[in-house]
Amino acid sequence: MLLNAMTKEELLKFKTELEEQYKDFQSKGLKLDMSRGKPSSSQLDLSMDMLDCLTSKDVLKAEDGTDCRNYGVLDGIAEAKKLFAEMISVNTDEIIIGGNSSLNMMYDAVAKAFTFGVVDSEKPWSKYDEIKFLCPAPGYDRHFAICESFGIKMITVPMKKDGPDMDMIEKLVSSDETIKGIWCVPMYSNPDGITYSDETVKRFANLLPKAADFRIFWDNAYCVHHLTDKPSKLLNILDECKRAGNPNMVYVFGSTAKVTFAGAGVAMMGSSKENTDYIKKLMSIQTIGSDKINQLRHVKYFSDFNGIVEHMKKHKDIIAPKFDAVLEKLEKEIKPLGIGEWHKPVGGYFISFNTMEGCAKRVVQLCKEAGVVLTPAGATFPYGKDPEDKNIRIAPTFPPVAELETAMDLFCLCVKIASAEKLS
Amino acid sequence: MLLNAMTKEELLKFKTELEEQYKDFQSKGLKLDMSRGKPSSSQLDLSMDMLDCLTSKDVLKAEDGTDCRNYGVLDGIAEAKKLFAEMISVNTDEIIIGGNSSLNMMYDAVAKAFTFGVVDSEKPWSKYDEIKFLCPAPGYDRHFAICESFGIKMITVPMKKDGPDMDMIEKLVSSDETIKGIWCVPMYSNPDGITYSDETVKRFANLLPKAADFRIFWDNAYCVHHLTDKPSKLLNILDECKRAGNPNMVYVFGSTAKVTFAGAGVAMMGSSKENTDYIKKLMSIQTIGSDKINQLRHVKYFSDFNGIVEHMKKHKDIIAPKFDAVLEKLEKEIKPLGIGEWHKPVGGYFISFNTMEGCAKRVVQLCKEAGVVLTPAGATFPYGKDPEDKNIRIAPTFPPVAELETAMDLFCLCVKIASAEKLS
Repeated sequence: MLLNAMTKEELLKFKTELEEQYKDFQSKGLKLDMSRGKPSSSQLDLSMDMLDCLTSKDVLKAEDGTDCRNYGVLDGIAEAKKLFAEMISVNTDEIIIGGNSSLNMMYDAVAKAFTFGVVDSEKPWSKYDEIKFLCPAPGYDRHFAICESFGIKMITVPMKKDGPDMDMIEKLVSSDETIKGIWCVPMYSNPDGITYSDETVKRFANLLPKAADFRIFWDNAYCVHHLTDKPSKLLNILDECKRAGNPNMVYVFGSTAKVTFAGAGVAMMGSSKENTDYIKKLMSIQTIGSDKINQLRHVKYFSDFNGIVEHMKKHKDIIAPKFDAVLEKLEKEIKPLGIGEWHKPVGGYFISFNTMEGCAKRVVQLCKEAGVVLTPAGATFPYGKDPEDKNIRIAPTFPPVAELETAMDLFCLCVKIASAEKLS
Repeated sequence: MLLNAMTKEELLKFKTELEEQYKDFQSKGLKLDMSRGKPSSSQLDLSMDMLDCLTSKDVLKAEDGTDCRNYGVLDGIAEAKKLFAEMISVNTDEIIIGGNSSLNMMYDAVAKAFTFGVVDSEKPWSKYDEIKFLCPAPGYDRHFAICESFGIKMITVPMKKDGPDMDMIEKLVSSDETIKGIWCVPMYSNPDGITYSDETVKRFANLLPKAADFRIFWDNAYCVHHLTDKPSKLLNILDECKRAGNPNMVYVFGSTAKVTFAGAGVAMMGSSKENTDYIKKLMSIQTIGSDKINQLRHVKYFSDFNGIVEHMKKHKDIIAPKFDAVLEKLEKEIKPLGIGEWHKPVGGYFISFNTMEGCAKRVVQLCKEAGVVLTPAGATFPYGKDPEDKNIRIAPTFPPVAELETAMDLFCLCVKIASAEKLS
């Protein structure tokens, strides 16, 4: 029975029963964390052999003879460039290998644009009274946090089934010179799990921004993170940008954080040669280069891109059942009541759940008070403000399945309570 | 015989002989690089066992249970903080463990001051028409490059026998609100090899800068890099700053770049708790944390600070003879002619050589044309301009001793030629 079809009496009875169940949960003393998209320890176990790739018995030289133990090589050893260029779909002269964090590379790209401008800038972004970024939402809270930190005004762009609202984006960027960027997670988006359609990618590549120094921050964090045997396909944005005569418009980011070790992977950025040359010139003042031993370790472990693809299948085998567990609970507990919306992602790290309007904060609060921490409601929107208070990001990867099921039982219960409160 | 005591004829004859020798060198087809302070491969070999500290058989957990393979821990695992806090002489709640590059941490500290200001800033440094840094010189070219990149005006401060000219520094910082920082390599300075005297450190700590947001960038790169069994001692700057009521005035930097692997070590920064808390808050937007596996690897390898001290003795055994080889050549070839000045460093990575006025560029050029690359003359001064064209930074660590001796034979020859040219 749909919740909104219940009579007042039915609803009251329903709610009273739920509150009893909730008390039971509270007495269990749960302490579960589903707040972040973290790999589980069994996923991390998958890469342990990588630690044996380089030992005291190995010669730590790159193909070209570079001693990976010593200083040098600003943008990464050639074999790491080759491996990861294929992963993020750019040429080997269009990639910069960074440290362990693609977030750091994105932050630095914004920071450098602020202080020095980008290739096509008239002046550094900090010299404007105000600049703006477009923020497809729900989206990734850490992207929005960078904007907030730099005082960049964020404009929310709604997400649709095949990517962000391109009509709105085209209109905005072509008319406002102070719109300097947009955040995109184009494949298995965070949190919706949507892969941008070919048309969406082409419309991105063919944007006619009023600002010559407008940049698309294309965070391809989940490019190899499939949950099925039939991966989604994402059109190559850099190729499309070149074709459209906009080769400098996009910065692509990727990392092995959720491929090997989340704390000790390899991050990378790709862009036009003109962009990467410019960034490398600025970087040459900042560092002598990233950790080449870790680059070599990754290259030795994977051999080639196919090694990464095969490795990711093992991740899939561990996490796909977790996604299924979440979806089954939602299907069983929420769907019949008509009090929530979601869809089944085929890749990435999240399930995006929409409550009835105005219920998300209450659900997160109820979960927290019974021992399950979720990403704060609103976090998936600029300034942490979900205008409809609906979206909750569910991160199923970290907890073991048993814990996840308990957490989801509580979650579903809390959705019911919050919905019943709303309708009462 | 002193060169300047020669008659015209003697000088001409001397020069002609030298030019013959120079031609011989040119015909050898040398290809030696003494341009950077890089460890040699035998030094890097010293740390190879570190690669065996963490294998697939090990549990990669920190003392507090943190899984070092996963996300988290912005400022470093507790045991790494403990180890490196002792190395750079700060408390464990006053340290931030970074990635592989202390240069990167210095750059980021300047970048953040530019965009956000520091703890005591009225406004971000980028909001001034111009800011200035004091640059003790000869000094480290990469420090100066950061200033140049950010458009910070550099004021050269002469180096004396016990550190920079403190009279000048005191006078300048107390009168000019736009002087926001100073670069220091306080121990075994780059390139002079001077360790600041206690009095110098105390005068630094007791500065009364007109700018409340003046910061001392204390690059303690060589704090454990002794060349003798009787290490120099450097007074604890942070303690002295606290004592003087200036706890926020200093940022201390260090790294294991020249302890373990130059490309894959661990960098760190220390400062007052107020400063580090402030920086961590900004950093929390930039990254989820640095490579904890590499931190754990370092901790396991060294166990404690004494492990680092012992390890550095092995470095000393390799590089002290190289310093000796350089000094012997200078002693034998240059001293009798009175055409250069230097002193014997007891730590660090360089020998600072001063030619007769106006000869440094010519010496570097002559060396280059016979196959030995030195750090460009002038590099040790702001804007690459040595006002007296005297200083050349000799970096003896990288080449094997035999190569080093050949290179020094050429170097001495070039000094003689340039000096003879000058006197002719």
